[in-house]
Amino acid sequence: MTALETSLSYLRLWTSGASDDAWALLDPDVVCVSPAGVLNGRDAVVAFMAPFAAGLVSSELLGAFGDDERALILYDTATAAVASAPAAELHSVVGGRITGIRIVFDRLPFALARGDVVPKPQA
Amino acid sequence: MTALETSLSYLRLWTSGASDDAWALLDPDVVCVSPAGVLNGRDAVVAFMAPFAAGLVSSELLGAFGDDERALILYDTATAAVASAPAAELHSVVGGRITGIRIVFDRLPFALARGDVVPKPQA
Repeated sequence: MTALETSLSYLRLWTSGASDDAWALLDPDVVCVSPAGVLNGRDAVVAFMAPFAAGLVSSELLGAFGDDERALILYDTATAAVASAPAAELHSVVGGRITGIRIVFDRLPFALARGDVVPKPQA
Repeated sequence: MTALETSLSYLRLWTSGASDDAWALLDPDVVCVSPAGVLNGRDAVVAFMAPFAAGLVSSELLGAFGDDERALILYDTATAAVASAPAAELHSVVGGRITGIRIVFDRLPFALARGDVVPKPQA
Protein backbone atom coordinates (compact mmCIF):
# COMPACT_ATOMS: atom_id res chain seq x y z
CA MET A 1 0.00 0.00 0.00
CA THR A 2 1.07 3.56 -0.64
CA ALA A 3 1.15 6.01 2.26
CA LEU A 4 -2.10 7.51 0.97
CA GLU A 5 -3.82 4.12 0.85
CA THR A 6 -2.77 3.46 4.45
CA SER A 7 -4.02 6.88 5.54
CA LEU A 8 -7.35 6.46 3.79
CA SER A 9 -7.79 2.99 5.29
CA TYR A 10 -7.10 4.43 8.74
CA LEU A 11 -9.63 7.22 8.24
CA ARG A 12 -12.27 4.92 6.76
CA LEU A 13 -11.91 2.43 9.60
CA TRP A 14 -12.13 4.81 12.57
CA THR A 15 -14.97 6.76 10.98
CA SER A 16 -17.02 3.65 10.24
CA GLY A 17 -17.14 1.86 13.58
CA ALA A 18 -14.07 -0.31 12.98
CA SER A 19 -11.79 1.66 15.27
CA ASP A 20 -9.76 -1.30 16.51
CA ASP A 21 -8.75 -2.10 12.94
CA ALA A 22 -7.76 1.55 12.50
CA TRP A 23 -5.60 1.61 15.61
CA ALA A 24 -3.78 -1.50 14.31
CA LEU A 25 -2.45 0.69 11.49
CA LEU A 26 -0.70 2.92 14.02
CA ASP A 27 2.93 2.11 14.72
CA PRO A 28 3.42 1.28 18.42
CA ASP A 29 5.88 4.17 18.58
CA VAL A 30 3.80 6.66 16.57
CA VAL A 31 4.34 10.32 17.49
CA CYS A 32 1.35 12.62 17.08
CA VAL A 33 1.70 16.40 17.23
CA SER A 34 -1.76 17.76 18.08
CA PRO A 35 -3.08 21.18 19.08
CA ALA A 36 -3.13 19.95 22.68
CA GLY A 37 0.49 18.77 22.63
CA VAL A 38 2.61 15.79 21.63
CA LEU A 39 1.17 12.29 22.05
CA ASN A 40 3.84 9.60 22.26
CA GLY A 41 2.94 6.06 21.26
CA ARG A 42 -0.12 4.21 19.99
CA ASP A 43 -1.81 4.01 23.40
CA ALA A 44 -1.68 7.78 23.81
CA VAL A 45 -3.05 8.37 20.31
CA VAL A 46 -5.85 5.85 20.84
CA ALA A 47 -6.76 7.47 24.17
CA PHE A 48 -7.05 10.77 22.30
CA MET A 49 -8.91 9.49 19.24
CA ALA A 50 -11.17 6.72 20.57
CA PRO A 51 -13.64 8.90 22.51
CA PHE A 52 -13.97 11.16 19.47
CA ALA A 53 -14.48 8.19 17.14
CA ALA A 54 -17.10 6.75 19.50
CA GLY A 55 -19.10 9.97 19.37
CA LEU A 56 -18.89 10.48 15.63
CA VAL A 57 -22.19 11.08 13.84
CA SER A 58 -20.82 11.42 10.31
CA SER A 59 -17.69 12.27 8.36
CA GLU A 60 -16.78 13.40 4.87
CA LEU A 61 -13.46 13.24 3.03
CA LEU A 62 -12.68 16.65 1.53
CA GLY A 63 -9.22 16.07 0.05
CA ALA A 64 -6.47 13.45 0.10
CA PHE A 65 -3.04 13.47 -1.47
CA GLY A 66 0.26 11.73 -0.87
CA ASP A 67 3.39 10.08 -2.12
CA ASP A 68 5.29 6.93 -1.16
CA GLU A 69 6.15 8.13 2.33
CA ARG A 70 3.58 10.72 3.39
CA ALA A 71 -0.08 11.55 3.02
CA LEU A 72 -2.09 14.68 3.74
CA ILE A 73 -5.83 14.36 4.21
CA LEU A 74 -8.60 16.81 5.02
CA TYR A 75 -11.98 15.64 6.30
CA ASP A 76 -15.01 17.02 8.03
CA THR A 77 -16.67 15.44 11.05
CA ALA A 78 -19.95 15.85 12.87
CA THR A 79 -20.54 14.95 16.50
CA ALA A 80 -23.34 15.74 18.93
CA ALA A 81 -21.19 18.49 20.41
CA VAL A 82 -19.96 20.12 17.16
CA ALA A 83 -21.88 19.97 13.88
CA SER A 84 -18.84 20.62 11.66
CA ALA A 85 -15.30 20.02 12.83
CA PRO A 86 -12.90 19.66 9.92
CA ALA A 87 -9.42 18.30 10.53
CA ALA A 88 -6.24 17.86 8.54
CA GLU A 89 -3.75 15.09 9.17
CA LEU A 90 -0.26 14.74 7.74
CA HIS A 91 0.87 11.14 8.08
CA SER A 92 4.30 9.60 7.79
CA VAL A 93 3.98 5.94 6.82
CA VAL A 94 6.60 3.19 7.02
CA GLY A 95 5.84 -0.41 6.05
CA GLY A 96 2.10 0.13 6.11
CA ARG A 97 2.13 1.63 9.60
CA ILE A 98 1.54 5.27 10.49
CA THR A 99 4.64 6.45 12.35
CA GLY A 100 3.95 10.18 12.51
CA ILE A 101 0.81 12.31 12.68
CA ARG A 102 0.48 16.06 12.56
CA ILE A 103 -3.19 16.88 13.19
CA VAL A 104 -4.79 20.30 12.94
CA PHE A 105 -8.33 21.12 14.00
CA ASP A 106 -10.21 23.92 15.71
CA ARG A 107 -10.37 23.29 19.45
CA LEU A 108 -12.56 26.32 20.13
CA PRO A 109 -16.02 24.79 19.58
CA PHE A 110 -15.05 21.72 21.62
CA ALA A 111 -13.69 23.85 24.47
CA LEU A 112 -16.89 25.90 24.48
CA ALA A 113 -19.10 22.78 24.34
CA ARG A 114 -17.23 21.22 27.26
CA GLY A 115 -17.28 24.47 29.21
CA ASP A 116 -13.48 24.57 29.42
CA VAL A 117 -13.68 28.17 28.27
CA VAL A 118 -16.50 30.69 28.35
CA PRO A 119 -17.12 33.85 26.34
CA LYS A 120 -15.58 36.86 28.02
CA PRO A 121 -18.13 38.43 30.37
CA GLN A 122 -19.45 41.71 28.97
CA ALA A 123 -18.46 44.79 30.97
CA MET B 1 1.32 26.42 -13.35
CA THR B 2 -0.19 23.42 -11.61
CA ALA B 3 -2.63 23.99 -8.77
CA LEU B 4 0.11 23.10 -6.33
CA GLU B 5 2.52 25.62 -7.86
CA THR B 6 -0.15 28.32 -7.56
CA SER B 7 -0.83 27.39 -3.93
CA LEU B 8 2.83 27.38 -3.01
CA SER B 9 3.36 30.73 -4.71
CA TYR B 10 0.42 32.15 -2.75
CA LEU B 11 1.80 30.82 0.53
CA ARG B 12 5.35 31.96 -0.19
CA LEU B 13 4.20 35.46 -1.12
CA TRP B 14 1.95 36.22 1.87
CA THR B 15 4.44 34.71 4.31
CA SER B 16 7.37 36.70 2.93
CA GLY B 17 6.07 40.27 2.98
CA ALA B 18 4.74 40.26 -0.59
CA SER B 19 1.10 40.02 0.42
CA ASP B 20 -0.27 42.13 -2.43
CA ASP B 21 1.25 39.73 -4.94
CA ALA B 22 -0.36 36.86 -3.02
CA TRP B 23 -3.82 38.43 -3.04
CA ALA B 24 -3.52 38.86 -6.83
CA LEU B 25 -3.57 35.06 -7.08
CA LEU B 26 -7.04 34.98 -5.49
CA ASP B 27 -9.95 34.90 -7.89
CA PRO B 28 -12.19 37.96 -7.36
CA ASP B 29 -15.04 35.54 -6.60
CA VAL B 30 -13.05 33.17 -4.37
CA VAL B 31 -15.08 31.42 -1.67
CA CYS B 32 -13.25 30.60 1.56
CA VAL B 33 -14.74 28.28 4.17
CA SER B 34 -12.99 29.10 7.45
CA PRO B 35 -13.59 28.12 11.07
CA ALA B 36 -15.24 31.50 11.58
CA GLY B 37 -17.62 31.09 8.64
CA VAL B 38 -17.77 31.57 4.88
CA LEU B 39 -15.86 34.47 3.30
CA ASN B 40 -17.22 35.49 -0.10
CA GLY B 41 -14.88 37.21 -2.54
CA ARG B 42 -11.28 38.36 -2.62
CA ASP B 43 -11.87 41.45 -0.50
CA ALA B 44 -13.34 39.39 2.33
CA VAL B 45 -10.46 36.89 2.21
CA VAL B 46 -7.88 39.67 2.18
CA ALA B 47 -9.59 41.37 5.14
CA PHE B 48 -9.29 38.07 7.01
CA MET B 49 -5.73 37.20 5.97
CA ALA B 50 -3.93 40.55 5.76
CA PRO B 51 -3.82 41.34 9.51
CA PHE B 52 -2.50 37.85 10.17
CA ALA B 53 0.11 38.14 7.41
CA ALA B 54 1.18 41.54 8.75
CA GLY B 55 1.82 40.05 12.20
CA LEU B 56 3.67 36.98 11.02
CA VAL B 57 7.02 36.30 12.67
CA SER B 58 7.90 33.11 10.79
CA SER B 59 6.37 30.22 8.87
CA GLU B 60 7.33 26.71 7.84
CA LEU B 61 5.90 24.49 5.13
CA LEU B 62 5.13 21.05 6.59
CA GLY B 63 3.51 19.30 3.63
CA ALA B 64 2.16 20.12 0.17
CA PHE B 65 0.45 17.93 -2.38
CA GLY B 66 -1.89 18.45 -5.29
CA ASP B 67 -3.07 17.61 -8.76
CA ASP B 68 -4.13 19.68 -11.77
CA GLU B 69 -7.14 21.23 -10.05
CA ARG B 70 -6.56 21.17 -6.30
CA ALA B 71 -3.81 21.48 -3.74
CA LEU B 72 -3.63 20.69 -0.04
CA ILE B 73 -0.94 22.35 2.03
CA LEU B 74 -0.02 22.25 5.70
CA TYR B 75 2.16 24.92 7.27
CA ASP B 76 3.08 26.25 10.67
CA THR B 77 3.10 29.91 11.62
CA ALA B 78 4.45 31.96 14.49
CA THR B 79 3.08 35.34 15.56
CA ALA B 80 3.59 37.45 18.65
CA ALA B 81 0.27 36.16 19.99
CA VAL B 82 0.70 32.44 19.24
CA ALA B 83 4.09 30.74 18.97
CA SER B 84 2.85 27.81 16.87
CA ALA B 85 -0.35 27.96 14.85
CA PRO B 86 -0.40 25.35 12.09
CA ALA B 87 -2.99 25.59 9.36
CA ALA B 88 -4.16 23.46 6.46
CA GLU B 89 -5.58 24.88 3.27
CA LEU B 90 -7.32 23.01 0.47
CA HIS B 91 -7.30 25.13 -2.67
CA SER B 92 -9.28 24.83 -5.87
CA VAL B 93 -7.39 26.49 -8.70
CA VAL B 94 -8.68 27.53 -12.13
CA GLY B 95 -6.48 29.29 -14.67
CA GLY B 96 -3.80 30.11 -12.13
CA ARG B 97 -6.27 31.72 -9.72
CA ILE B 98 -7.43 30.30 -6.40
CA THR B 99 -11.21 29.98 -6.61
CA GLY B 100 -11.90 28.00 -3.44
CA ILE B 101 -10.23 27.75 -0.04
CA ARG B 102 -11.04 25.48 2.83
CA ILE B 103 -8.86 26.51 5.77
CA VAL B 104 -8.51 24.71 9.09
CA PHE B 105 -6.67 26.04 12.11
CA ASP B 106 -7.05 26.11 15.87
CA ARG B 107 -8.88 29.27 16.93
CA LEU B 108 -8.52 28.55 20.64
CA PRO B 109 -5.09 30.13 21.30
CA PHE B 110 -6.06 33.23 19.28
CA ALA B 111 -9.38 33.57 21.14
CA LEU B 112 -7.56 33.27 24.47
CA ALA B 113 -4.87 35.75 23.40
CA ARG B 114 -7.49 38.28 22.30
CA GLY B 115 -9.55 37.70 25.45
CA ASP B 116 -12.60 36.66 23.42
CA VAL B 117 -12.87 33.66 25.72
CA VAL B 118 -11.52 33.01 29.19
CA PRO B 119 -10.85 29.78 31.06
CA LYS B 120 -13.89 28.68 33.02
CA PRO B 121 -13.74 30.17 36.51
CA GLN B 122 -12.92 27.50 39.09
CA ALA B 123 -15.75 26.70 41.52
